[in-house]
Amino acid sequence: MKRARIVYGGSIHHAKEHEGNLLLDNGTLVGEEEVVWLPPVEPKTVFALGLNYADHASELAFQAPSEPLVFLKGPNTFIGHKGQTVRPADATYMHYECELAVVISKTARKVKAEDAYNFVRGYTIANDYAIRDYLENYYRPNLRVKNRDTCTPIGPWLVDAEDIQNPMNLTLKTYVNGELTQEGNTKDMIFSIPVLIEYLSSFMTLNAGDIILTGTPKGSVDTPVGAQVITEIEGLGRLANTIVG
Amino acid sequence: MKRARIVYGGSIHHAKEHEGNLLLDNGTLVGEEEVVWLPPVEPKTVFALGLNYADHASELAFQAPSEPLVFLKGPNTFIGHKGQTVRPADATYMHYECELAVVISKTARKVKAEDAYNFVRGYTIANDYAIRDYLENYYRPNLRVKNRDTCTPIGPWLVDAEDIQNPMNLTLKTYVNGELTQEGNTKDMIFSIPVLIEYLSSFMTLNAGDIILTGTPKGSVDTPVGAQVITEIEGLGRLANTIVG
Repeated sequence: MKRARIVYGGSIHHAKEHEGNLLLDNGTLVGEEEVVWLPPVEPKTVFALGLNYADHASELAFQAPSEPLVFLKGPNTFIGHKGQTVRPADATYMHYECELAVVISKTARKVKAEDAYNFVRGYTIANDYAIRDYLENYYRPNLRVKNRDTCTPIGPWLVDAEDIQNPMNLTLKTYVNGELTQEGNTKDMIFSIPVLIEYLSSFMTLNAGDIILTGTPKGSVDTPVGAQVITEIEGLGRLANTIVG
Repeated sequence: MKRARIVYGGSIHHAKEHEGNLLLDNGTLVGEEEVVWLPPVEPKTVFALGLNYADHASELAFQAPSEPLVFLKGPNTFIGHKGQTVRPADATYMHYECELAVVISKTARKVKAEDAYNFVRGYTIANDYAIRDYLENYYRPNLRVKNRDTCTPIGPWLVDAEDIQNPMNLTLKTYVNGELTQEGNTKDMIFSIPVLIEYLSSFMTLNAGDIILTGTPKGSVDTPVGAQVITEIEGLGRLANTIVG
């Protein structure tokens, strides 16, 4: 099942994908073009991974990390499918980052990797833009790189976990103005989804609705004002975003 | 006015301090001993400062930073006054950090320092425990240092901004088992409250209810299981906390 949170007729609805349309929680069937898309899960605690693909770490001239580099993201930064992301006026390097987002299903504490998928509700796509001008020469990025308003589109769908046979073997692609600029596969993550859940839940509690953004492969390029950016993950759909000034 | 969020009779109430007691939103007057204290503001987006007092940076053998070192904290880490904080079994260095917490009153974007106090709703006390075992040799602390469950007591009161004449001249004190172990003054912050609000709102939106933990002065010591820790700030009260195993 693919699920969405959308605005229609002035109110927020939960909806399911139904033969190319959206079936709202009140029984109304509407076209995808008729709604405003919100993040499919309301972002509360959102974890993001730095340098979780070795090729991307290499691209940034960093060594691959020896343990997960995790930071938190604030709710101000998230927008839905087909949203507009504001490029900061002073940015020289604004890089998209296509990332598999994992949504937690229930309270998780001291979970072993072999049990970790029992704590996954589903998956969606995040585009975790980085303002690289402000990246410092160590790993955990600061808020000016990774916490700008509107700089993390997420969606369109929350796809139920049972619909994704192997989340560790999904192709990721990014297109800028229709041109393929990034391609990778989740199998190249340094720290896999089960390892990340084991790691985080080893020292803190994960809760239902928490989201883990699992990092991006190589292929980052600058996105100027006016760019139409599509981040796509096999089985999850295509997340569209426009850069505005 | 001093405001609290408490649990009484099985439900959550907002309350005001009234002659040493709590006047609940339903008109009931109860004693402080009769309630369970929650964080006075529900933690949503919480910013914390690293090394914002030069003496503390020096104590940790770090240089004072040239711009604010800000990181986010997740909601899992907050507990109220008189709560219990769990010491991780493997921790060798668990240090309290008495910090002035600033609560934002309304949407703030590109605010100048001279206007910043117009965006402050009030103040409270935070004890931002750090598990120093996991501190790496650069500035922005990772989640194992600063995002453990229960490791950030906050409260007891949200004190209205108009009741604090000069938040940049308040004495901070910490007592462990009755012994004074930390003493400082908010006037020694490297980046003042107005500067922090200007800085954060220069690149992102602050919202009503957002909280800024402004850093701690020197005087950190380890707190073993059983320690009774009081963090106190002039005009704001005393925040009590117990370390458990």
